[in-house]
Amino acid sequence: MIKVGVVGYGYWGPNIVRNFNSLDDVQVTAVCDQNDKVHKAISKLYPNIKTTADSKDITDSSDIDIVAVVTPVSTHFEIAKRALENGKHVFVEKPFTATVAQGQELVELGAQKNLKIMVDHTFLFTGAVNKLKEIIDDKQLGDIYYYDSTRVNLGLFQHDVNVIWDLAPHDFSIMRYLLGEDPVSISACGKSHVYEYANIAYISVNFNSNLIAHFNVNWLSPVKIRNTLIGGEKKMVVWDDISPDEKVKIYDKGIDVNSPSDRYKLLVSYRSGDVWVPKVNQTEALKLESQYFVDCISNNITPINDGLAGLEVVKMLEACNESLKNDGKPVKL
Amino acid sequence: MIKVGVVGYGYWGPNIVRNFNSLDDVQVTAVCDQNDKVHKAISKLYPNIKTTADSKDITDSSDIDIVAVVTPVSTHFEIAKRALENGKHVFVEKPFTATVAQGQELVELGAQKNLKIMVDHTFLFTGAVNKLKEIIDDKQLGDIYYYDSTRVNLGLFQHDVNVIWDLAPHDFSIMRYLLGEDPVSISACGKSHVYEYANIAYISVNFNSNLIAHFNVNWLSPVKIRNTLIGGEKKMVVWDDISPDEKVKIYDKGIDVNSPSDRYKLLVSYRSGDVWVPKVNQTEALKLESQYFVDCISNNITPINDGLAGLEVVKMLEACNESLKNDGKPVKL
Amino acid sequence: MIKVGVVGYGYWGPNIVRNFNSLDDVQVTAVCDQNDKVHKAISKLYPNIKTTADSKDITDSSDIDIVAVVTPVSTHFEIAKRALENGKHVFVEKPFTATVAQGQELVELGAQKNLKIMVDHTFLFTGAVNKLKEIIDDKQLGDIYYYDSTRVNLGLFQHDVNVIWDLAPHDFSIMRYLLGEDPVSISACGKSHVYEYANIAYISVNFNSNLIAHFNVNWLSPVKIRNTLIGGEKKMVVWDDISPDEKVKIYDKGIDVNSPSDRYKLLVSYRSGDVWVPKVNQTEALKLESQYFVDCISNNITPINDGLAGLEVVKMLEACNESLKNDGKPVKL
Amino acid sequence: MIKVGVVGYGYWGPNIVRNFNSLDDVQVTAVCDQNDKVHKAISKLYPNIKTTADSKDITDSSDIDIVAVVTPVSTHFEIAKRALENGKHVFVEKPFTATVAQGQELVELGAQKNLKIMVDHTFLFTGAVNKLKEIIDDKQLGDIYYYDSTRVNLGLFQHDVNVIWDLAPHDFSIMRYLLGEDPVSISACGKSHVYEYANIAYISVNFNSNLIAHFNVNWLSPVKIRNTLIGGEKKMVVWDDISPDEKVKIYDKGIDVNSPSDRYKLLVSYRSGDVWVPKVNQTEALKLESQYFVDCISNNITPINDGLAGLEVVKMLEACNESLKNDGKPVKL
Repeated sequence: MIKVGVVGYGYWGPNIVRNFNSLDDVQVTAVCDQNDKVHKAISKLYPNIKTTADSKDITDSSDIDIVAVVTPVSTHFEIAKRALENGKHVFVEKPFTATVAQGQELVELGAQKNLKIMVDHTFLFTGAVNKLKEIIDDKQLGDIYYYDSTRVNLGLFQHDVNVIWDLAPHDFSIMRYLLGEDPVSISACGKSHVYEYANIAYISVNFNSNLIAHFNVNWLSPVKIRNTLIGGEKKMVVWDDISPDEKVKIYDKGIDVNSPSDRYKLLVSYRSGDVWVPKVNQTEALKLESQYFVDCISNNITPINDGLAGLEVVKMLEACNESLKNDGKPVKL
Repeated sequence: MIKVGVVGYGYWGPNIVRNFNSLDDVQVTAVCDQNDKVHKAISKLYPNIKTTADSKDITDSSDIDIVAVVTPVSTHFEIAKRALENGKHVFVEKPFTATVAQGQELVELGAQKNLKIMVDHTFLFTGAVNKLKEIIDDKQLGDIYYYDSTRVNLGLFQHDVNVIWDLAPHDFSIMRYLLGEDPVSISACGKSHVYEYANIAYISVNFNSNLIAHFNVNWLSPVKIRNTLIGGEKKMVVWDDISPDEKVKIYDKGIDVNSPSDRYKLLVSYRSGDVWVPKVNQTEALKLESQYFVDCISNNITPINDGLAGLEVVKMLEACNESLKNDGKPVKL
Repeated sequence: MIKVGVVGYGYWGPNIVRNFNSLDDVQVTAVCDQNDKVHKAISKLYPNIKTTADSKDITDSSDIDIVAVVTPVSTHFEIAKRALENGKHVFVEKPFTATVAQGQELVELGAQKNLKIMVDHTFLFTGAVNKLKEIIDDKQLGDIYYYDSTRVNLGLFQHDVNVIWDLAPHDFSIMRYLLGEDPVSISACGKSHVYEYANIAYISVNFNSNLIAHFNVNWLSPVKIRNTLIGGEKKMVVWDDISPDEKVKIYDKGIDVNSPSDRYKLLVSYRSGDVWVPKVNQTEALKLESQYFVDCISNNITPINDGLAGLEVVKMLEACNESLKNDGKPVKL
Repeated sequence: MIKVGVVGYGYWGPNIVRNFNSLDDVQVTAVCDQNDKVHKAISKLYPNIKTTADSKDITDSSDIDIVAVVTPVSTHFEIAKRALENGKHVFVEKPFTATVAQGQELVELGAQKNLKIMVDHTFLFTGAVNKLKEIIDDKQLGDIYYYDSTRVNLGLFQHDVNVIWDLAPHDFSIMRYLLGEDPVSISACGKSHVYEYANIAYISVNFNSNLIAHFNVNWLSPVKIRNTLIGGEKKMVVWDDISPDEKVKIYDKGIDVNSPSDRYKLLVSYRSGDVWVPKVNQTEALKLESQYFVDCISNNITPINDGLAGLEVVKMLEACNESLKNDGKPVKL
């Protein structure tokens, strides 16, 4: 029996508890939260789970194998570090840490202690992302030209980070997983309308290859949009994560460059064919991810979303913040 | 009877001819195009219109009052200049000119000769844009926070300009018309996948006020999107120009900043009310615009979309090109 | 403390248990189901609920106040009757009973025993239906012309009833609640493609007034549609229950009859104005309904969805079956 | 050169003139309309077309080969008959005639005189319908279970016919073309809210086979819907004629009947696979249809939409009217 302790029971914590608890040979044994009311709610739903307001009761417990850190970003480092020091495997909410330095320290500590770190980039375990991965790895799109994501809605303003740190980790981790290519520079523009942290931002990402990527994140949109366009040389994809039935669409559309010898005349013509909407696995991503973490620990496998993967995302986030301060000046990575 | 000569009968020219020709007391008397087949097509549809392959037959004709320049951008300056020099009012396709210097010269020439210049920013005459103008002028949105436009599709690659010069003039002119505020700097990132000109670009625009603007333009999108979000302090608007019936939606949505004294606790909460979809005038914009140009000439009125307005758009386009060369480095305006 | 026993824990039963159990001063004390696996699942989630395979343990228990009957239609009568005879209030899944005669007997028994019967027409407690009720009662639509509902998807084939008995009870009960008018005849056509019961049907309902109603129900549709159009003299409504944000839309659209004296000439012209999308309450309907049943019992109020209301729906269902057998021959009500 | 005379230049006539006129070796030489203003409009657009207010100038002209009858239904018979008697081929707007008897007389007259009759069932020449025909003929759907069409909007009230005669001819002709099966009985319910003719109607059509068809037609809908579901044993199709890009969708969805021996237990389970959106020809249907009529005449081919095909549609329309008078009583065909 693998025992899990969860620190933080706010917006996402209940999902972490429910999913780890649903696994065979796994049980959540303790949950820490500062809020008394939450303790009652947990006890009603899970009479067997201990509750505490002190995270050390989790990180230092001799009876816990995995510590899940589901607290605000600014606290990830301290809790995760203590858990690692106490010999626990660590599952950390995204983004991994508040700084690159913190992330590096955790990664080194994990390696040294031979413990697994998983960063909760849940989207990597959705049916949609895995269908996209399959299509891209199968070279159906040809050379990838662009990756263009819009992730906006009337969003939860975070206390300790801006909208980029809240929403873009999803997109950065998905892009890295799908395309396997690291950026060379980032340019970010944004604005803070309500309080000190930016609530709207536009991020352009440059690569050494043909690829360009862009991320539109906004906490003040009247409509919810979760739309990613991936354009390739041969085919193109639209991933609309809000659509209940047609999340992924592959368009046999593109251009034909007609005559390279005479390219300024009949330069480019369209090509427009069928559209294909593949069936996508609907299993809850967090269920697959929590099972995968347990499997990685049991079989000593490095997770695709390990500390190093989480660290790369934090590097991009830090670069965004620097560019943001300079009206979009590109920041080298 | 006001007589109109049209130079260029490619993609947009037929609409110019049809609309000017439909006005009372106006007739299109001559059309210039390099393509012989086009001459035949014109003669079949309009037996009374003269055709020519030499634009001087239009610009220099003693029998023409208005010259409409509907040619590639790189030729606007030369043709428009000659028309002005010959005492014609000039209607120029967008973007106004290929450089700021050219635009300035035309504006000065027009002023000096007391001739009208209109730049064909057609969208300013759509029912949707005018409904938006009405809502914004009526202060229904409150202080404007952001203007976010996506204009992408499988687009016509232009011979002489990049995607920004093709698509963004629409958005820049609309934004200026609606918000009446000029930007202080621009940051643009893009990529050229097919030939020398960028076919995809992301443009962030900074202002001295609370406002931020962003433009997503792309000739290689598998789907056509014409979507603009305008977020305000009080209300927000979505303008979906592709929707046949619900182009403009006003959302009584936003945030309430709860307690300025204790803003790090219960910072921000949502507000979500009704949505209102106002009826929008469906009259063809180009019909209204061509009539308006004739009225401006007859009554000596300065058009809202005069040479100066067109010039401001070209200034933004030039700044985009400079930023594009530097991976998004912001360019002052 | 009011004690609830639930008979049947299949597709809908878990929602009944969860909602009654969430109410203050109410607790579900026992659940009956034939399936052993279900007993284990219940015990894991609700350690305090007793499980049984014999419905008499519920209907005859001296420790239960309300019996919820969430079994196949063919068994409703027997279980509900026994519950009433044992002095329990009864909450019955829709449709109320398998025949009109059964429904009448239960209604009489309930009246005689002074016990409450509620038929689970859950939709009457949704925000959308109550917004529609408000709009209609406020006479915003004027005289109602038609009620046109489409309720189709790839549906669960029922063992003991056809698609009409499965899906139309929703629509019949909603229509009765909204319009308050009883039909005079029904015509139904359908087909059985898979087994003895019809899996597709079209139902037309005639009234003495100007009103006509129609119901399209289908278990074999590749797409899920939940769309109701209500057309009135002054305004019209579209209720799309699948839309997450815009369930109810009120169209200021209609016709103007121009000149009654000369009606064969310029007969009718369109009127097309704004669209209004009111905010709709998102509270789970079953939560409101279960609370309402408890309130009706406590305060001796007759539920809007009492046995008599359920019986009227069964009358329509029986008429449908008769018409179905005769290729759509209208059946008087 | 084939010469075409057109009687009627109201809503649809201009399209008939434009399309016939665009064909090689075909010219529209004369148009008849009662309205003087229309004569001026025609002369401006087509200086070479003669105009008249007397249909005999068309039907009796020695200089005309084809007479297109684009007038109200009630006048089709008289004009078409006179044209046939004068040796003209006849192109008649749908529905073919106001009665079955009239249709039969025209068909006989055409056969006797060896002249072609084409009824303008334009939809048979759309890319969408031909893609559907291809899919169905290719047996991709398997045995067809149902054909369910919704054709509603805020529609043009007709002077001389009800909504069924206005809208259902499209659907009846498409269904006949696609499925090639004639119905055995029809049941129609409807209501007249504005004047003597029904403005809303629901039509159920029974066949000897497994097939059932249904048609929802309405002139008083606030939204425009053009949606047809075709359900088959193997696959299902949704044809949304309003969608600009995805008119036809093929769903690999359906049911599996699990165990015929034990069918009352695990009766039926879903099957849900990919969706395929084939590219559809976008050529204007009327252009293809008018060319086809000319080809049929030149090569002595019987059109798919000849008088007999038009007559079958009128038989269904007449049956609808009879059922309508009797509250939906089914009428044998």
